[in-house]
Amino acid sequence: MDKVSINQLSCPMPELDFEIITLGHGSGGLLSNQLLESGVFDLLSNEYLDQHHDGATINLTGRTAVSTDSFVVSPVFFPGGNIGDLAVNGTVNDINMCGARAKFLTLSFILEEGLTMKAFWEILVSIRNTANEAGVKIITGDTKVVERGKGDQIFINTTGIGEVHPTAQIGVSQIKTGDQIIVSGPLATHGVAILSVRQGLEFETTIRSDTRHFNHIVPPLMEAFGSHIHLLKDPTRGGLASVLNEVCRDSRKGIDLLQTAIPVLDEVNGACELLGLDPLYVANEGVFIIFADSEVVPGILEYLRQCEGCEMVSVIGAVTSDHAGQVVMQSAIGGRRVVNMLVGEQLPRIC
Amino acid sequence: MDKVSINQLSCPMPELDFEIITLGHGSGGLLSNQLLESGVFDLLSNEYLDQHHDGATINLTGRTAVSTDSFVVSPVFFPGGNIGDLAVNGTVNDINMCGARAKFLTLSFILEEGLTMKAFWEILVSIRNTANEAGVKIITGDTKVVERGKGDQIFINTTGIGEVHPTAQIGVSQIKTGDQIIVSGPLATHGVAILSVRQGLEFETTIRSDTRHFNHIVPPLMEAFGSHIHLLKDPTRGGLASVLNEVCRDSRKGIDLLQTAIPVLDEVNGACELLGLDPLYVANEGVFIIFADSEVVPGILEYLRQCEGCEMVSVIGAVTSDHAGQVVMQSAIGGRRVVNMLVGEQLPRIC
Repeated sequence: MDKVSINQLSCPMPELDFEIITLGHGSGGLLSNQLLESGVFDLLSNEYLDQHHDGATINLTGRTAVSTDSFVVSPVFFPGGNIGDLAVNGTVNDINMCGARAKFLTLSFILEEGLTMKAFWEILVSIRNTANEAGVKIITGDTKVVERGKGDQIFINTTGIGEVHPTAQIGVSQIKTGDQIIVSGPLATHGVAILSVRQGLEFETTIRSDTRHFNHIVPPLMEAFGSHIHLLKDPTRGGLASVLNEVCRDSRKGIDLLQTAIPVLDEVNGACELLGLDPLYVANEGVFIIFADSEVVPGILEYLRQCEGCEMVSVIGAVTSDHAGQVVMQSAIGGRRVVNMLVGEQLPRIC
Repeated sequence: MDKVSINQLSCPMPELDFEIITLGHGSGGLLSNQLLESGVFDLLSNEYLDQHHDGATINLTGRTAVSTDSFVVSPVFFPGGNIGDLAVNGTVNDINMCGARAKFLTLSFILEEGLTMKAFWEILVSIRNTANEAGVKIITGDTKVVERGKGDQIFINTTGIGEVHPTAQIGVSQIKTGDQIIVSGPLATHGVAILSVRQGLEFETTIRSDTRHFNHIVPPLMEAFGSHIHLLKDPTRGGLASVLNEVCRDSRKGIDLLQTAIPVLDEVNGACELLGLDPLYVANEGVFIIFADSEVVPGILEYLRQCEGCEMVSVIGAVTSDHAGQVVMQSAIGGRRVVNMLVGEQLPRIC
């Protein structure tokens, strides 16, 4: 299902006798129950959640991937999505980066007193639609409410559970000198989309977040290329530069990057120039990085080019035994420079 | 290991060149790495976390229990524990309430800019000690930082994964008329301990939170009594009254309670009277409720009486086919009254 049709899966908010979230909705008592029974349970209904127990029981066999993320993005609604989409996609992707297909998600909210039920409902509908589209089930959850001024509208934690593909041998210890480094799509789109609507920084742009999951993309990739894929990474906070530096540090190898091969949308590049940002350090959502044996790279490129959001897939560099621990980039004008990890905080609360 | 010896497992904070958490510590860049490398990774080190990947890969077979909880307790440090103990014990308990032994935890922080590293370290040490004592491994995590005034020092999400005991048949649909209801220990201790140090409400007391896990108590219980145990519940937010009302609603049965059988420590009772609180509605941490066939009740009582924190275990009532959907309590002076679910919020942010 493509993005347009997902967004059309609207779901009208039920008639409620309250319009805003209050502390009582986190009490565990009558108001908590009213909130959940108001339509939340119906909206997210499945055979696990319908048990209304403190936890869920699932059946699993074999290697299982687990990942957790708390989402604090600000603003909560942004061009191309909201914190709900992000909380589903982000954790599904972390599972995918283990060479796995995400199957289950837990969902935990910290709501700020005063959040409108309308905003909460819209986020819940996004969560439901994104989870359905990814084919993951929300199996258990939790809702807390904090006083006004002790939170920021809504924080969401999702924890994902998935099945690791039988052939997957993913890990920083697997990468080898000569491995090619592929990025699945253009960098910095998500970070710039958030920044474009950040209070005090609004600027005119049509850039939308590329938030998406790889639950339908990574499993076939593992099926086709198995242990030839050595590492998968999603370059979220800290951007491509920070993630590649971590890989260099942990693998004790070097990385050569080719600046001209790194895809960035023209308007994202323009916005970065305007704001003095380097796309290498801007947070990403809808792209991932592959370290793979060079012989399978043509096959990976051919496969990814026909996947939605990966049309601009590109080989951006390679692993080297030179300059261990360092990322070195050949720039567009020919010089070479060391690319360091992000220092400080370029863009807080981007996911 | 008993509580005293856990608390003795202190661990000196490493020498750091920063004293407070800043937004940069959530950047995903150099400061995030410095924070984790400062001693956090060493403190929590195990074969899963040491991979430093976006997720962890574990091996699981059979029925698996999963539960998630976000902890927002205020104040963060309270008599008998802190938010770190609570975040481990609370989620381990939710797994136990599925008739399971918790094996793995994920750990996700939302830190408020300005949190002292000293406080964070103390919480981390509690998490490590409590997880070790419970025999659960922290396999993956996440750290976000929000601006001052957009959070409240620290929120923690833990998601637990555990093995359901092979004989467990736990669920609200399993309970039967005639089932006896057992509470493992005295009510309301945790809620009153928190309240005793809540800003503006401080009063003199020696009451300490009874936060504890049941990871060494529930599995032998399942082993001994298997499918004779029909439901396990921990009466946290909303207290005993709210949890029993939910059970009545979902099972379409009634519950008879005997007030004189409900254990409450004398000083907790005294504090509740002083503050106008009903112990039936105060949040609990260190107790759980069992619904079981009456023939196994003597055996359960004998077993629990020798478990730490369960010395005051008591049969507090029974399931009835009368007054379906209602909890009816016979009071100490002989009258009978309906006990409703908590209305509003008696004590916000108790866990």
